[in-house]
Amino acid sequence: MHAIVIGEPGGPDVLEWTEVPDPEPAPGEVLVDVAASAVNRADVMQRMGRYDPPPGTSPYPGLEASGRVAALGEGVTGWRVGDEVCALLGGGGYAERVAVPAGQLLPVPAGVDLVEAAGLPEVACTVWSNVFMLARLDAGERFLVHGGGSGIGTMAIQLAKAHGARVLCTVGSAEKAARCLELGADEAINYREDDFVEHGPYDVVLDNMGAKYLERNVRSLATGGRLVVIGLQGGTRAELDLNALLRKRAAVHATSLRARPAEEKAAIVAAVRDHVWPLLEAGKVRPVVDRALPMAEAAQAHRVLEDSGHIGKILLSV
Amino acid sequence: MHAIVIGEPGGPDVLEWTEVPDPEPAPGEVLVDVAASAVNRADVMQRMGRYDPPPGTSPYPGLEASGRVAALGEGVTGWRVGDEVCALLGGGGYAERVAVPAGQLLPVPAGVDLVEAAGLPEVACTVWSNVFMLARLDAGERFLVHGGGSGIGTMAIQLAKAHGARVLCTVGSAEKAARCLELGADEAINYREDDFVEHGPYDVVLDNMGAKYLERNVRSLATGGRLVVIGLQGGTRAELDLNALLRKRAAVHATSLRARPAEEKAAIVAAVRDHVWPLLEAGKVRPVVDRALPMAEAAQAHRVLEDSGHIGKILLSV
Repeated sequence: MHAIVIGEPGGPDVLEWTEVPDPEPAPGEVLVDVAASAVNRADVMQRMGRYDPPPGTSPYPGLEASGRVAALGEGVTGWRVGDEVCALLGGGGYAERVAVPAGQLLPVPAGVDLVEAAGLPEVACTVWSNVFMLARLDAGERFLVHGGGSGIGTMAIQLAKAHGARVLCTVGSAEKAARCLELGADEAINYREDDFVEHGPYDVVLDNMGAKYLERNVRSLATGGRLVVIGLQGGTRAELDLNALLRKRAAVHATSLRARPAEEKAAIVAAVRDHVWPLLEAGKVRPVVDRALPMAEAAQAHRVLEDSGHIGKILLSV
Repeated sequence: MHAIVIGEPGGPDVLEWTEVPDPEPAPGEVLVDVAASAVNRADVMQRMGRYDPPPGTSPYPGLEASGRVAALGEGVTGWRVGDEVCALLGGGGYAERVAVPAGQLLPVPAGVDLVEAAGLPEVACTVWSNVFMLARLDAGERFLVHGGGSGIGTMAIQLAKAHGARVLCTVGSAEKAARCLELGADEAINYREDDFVEHGPYDVVLDNMGAKYLERNVRSLATGGRLVVIGLQGGTRAELDLNALLRKRAAVHATSLRARPAEEKAAIVAAVRDHVWPLLEAGKVRPVVDRALPMAEAAQAHRVLEDSGHIGKILLSV
């Protein structure tokens, strides 16, 4: 098969569409003929040599994919060859075939295109596990997501709104603001012109900036507020005001999905199938796709992501 | 009645046993004839003018007391005049009488002396709400409490052990270490000689030091670990390594009990009655009392607390 291989760490041009050996499904795994994958920030970090794949996972980038079941490993039940699926991956989505633990497979939701479905697993699992399973966002609470136009942002806005929260997001342009409002955000705050702290307080904040926003995120929390950091695009170390946190009885969580053991991923995928898939099938939550490029043009897809002009997911189709 | 009045902020000698008006029980409150109160760090902060009582609470110090029900406010059911009780207070325990919302009353546990019971509400409610309700310490998990010899420490060691956790604590002397081991700690780490990080990792850390220990507390957490900060004796601001937190999928919580609304206090008190009181009545958890002094000698009690040589609670009996 072909896969995108990272020759050595560097810029987008190190991504090469190359002939490689086919993967084999281990016991408990399913082999998928990939229709599409999608680009995530972690892929860029991996390309730069700053984020090694967890032990035992594919060396090729790609944390999610859609396609058709090609073969079942020993002991797998509940799936058949030919089923249209999408999957949360530890890596290896940028390829023509990928082997994945059966617990990380999801059916393609009714009404969603097979290629579009490639961009669902990472955002649905990340938002559901962090905003709902961990931070327990409740109806009527105030929710802020940074980067409202990102893949995570566009899913978080829709899911939080569907659950009856008041939804605010930060964005970097008027175009993104308009799109976030269409998706259900109550307010879109342009961070170039406005301070999100002044629009608070928030019960739950989903953050991808890390250090750069820590002080303001904590300042913007409500009593009992939960800050969940899932990205460190603004650095890793910053001063924490424990007195502010204590007076608010608040919490700072930081998590990532990729390094979790398979059984935790399976539990998250099962919860997503129960709670998010019905909303997708009812059309209340939609995949938001910026564009799809051929997988051989992964370098160009990375450039688009790094320019941050996109809204929603960037897909890579085989 | 008499109460300890803080004339103006300052050292222990500003605490004066003075004639003041009797409190009246408001609707939903119970008037208690105080047998004893107990000393908490927050009382010292209040005496120094650094911790104002929450709005609507007594101006006198004292976050807990035991005694007998003297009168019932309008609408109170479930308690009778003469009942022996102890109570979690917003303030006012250093007095001959105190009015308290009925939801913050607990019966004196069978087998516990009326005066000893004065030292139970704060430590039982603080440990139960933080270690079990918030951080969800589970059987088999590793638990660290700083200040194992303190009132909080002695209760946390016993409750965590009773729930099947592996229990470690830090202490400042060999005498405290020996006492903590007697109470059920698996290891007592003398912080003057040893580094608690090297005895980790911990699933749950209960911390009273704040800034001074933040970096080491985070470094000592296990994957999925929960740090709960309930005191800031070592300062309020420190650098947080969000990358360390993210790699561990860990959380930093900070809370306090005193400022919570009455309905949250009532929920905690009800949970303590369900989960901690049976352990006290079975003799599996015991009140740990350093000494009892007459309430008029509150100044001396504060000196003992500030010297940190005590083990367990310092009581003030009327």
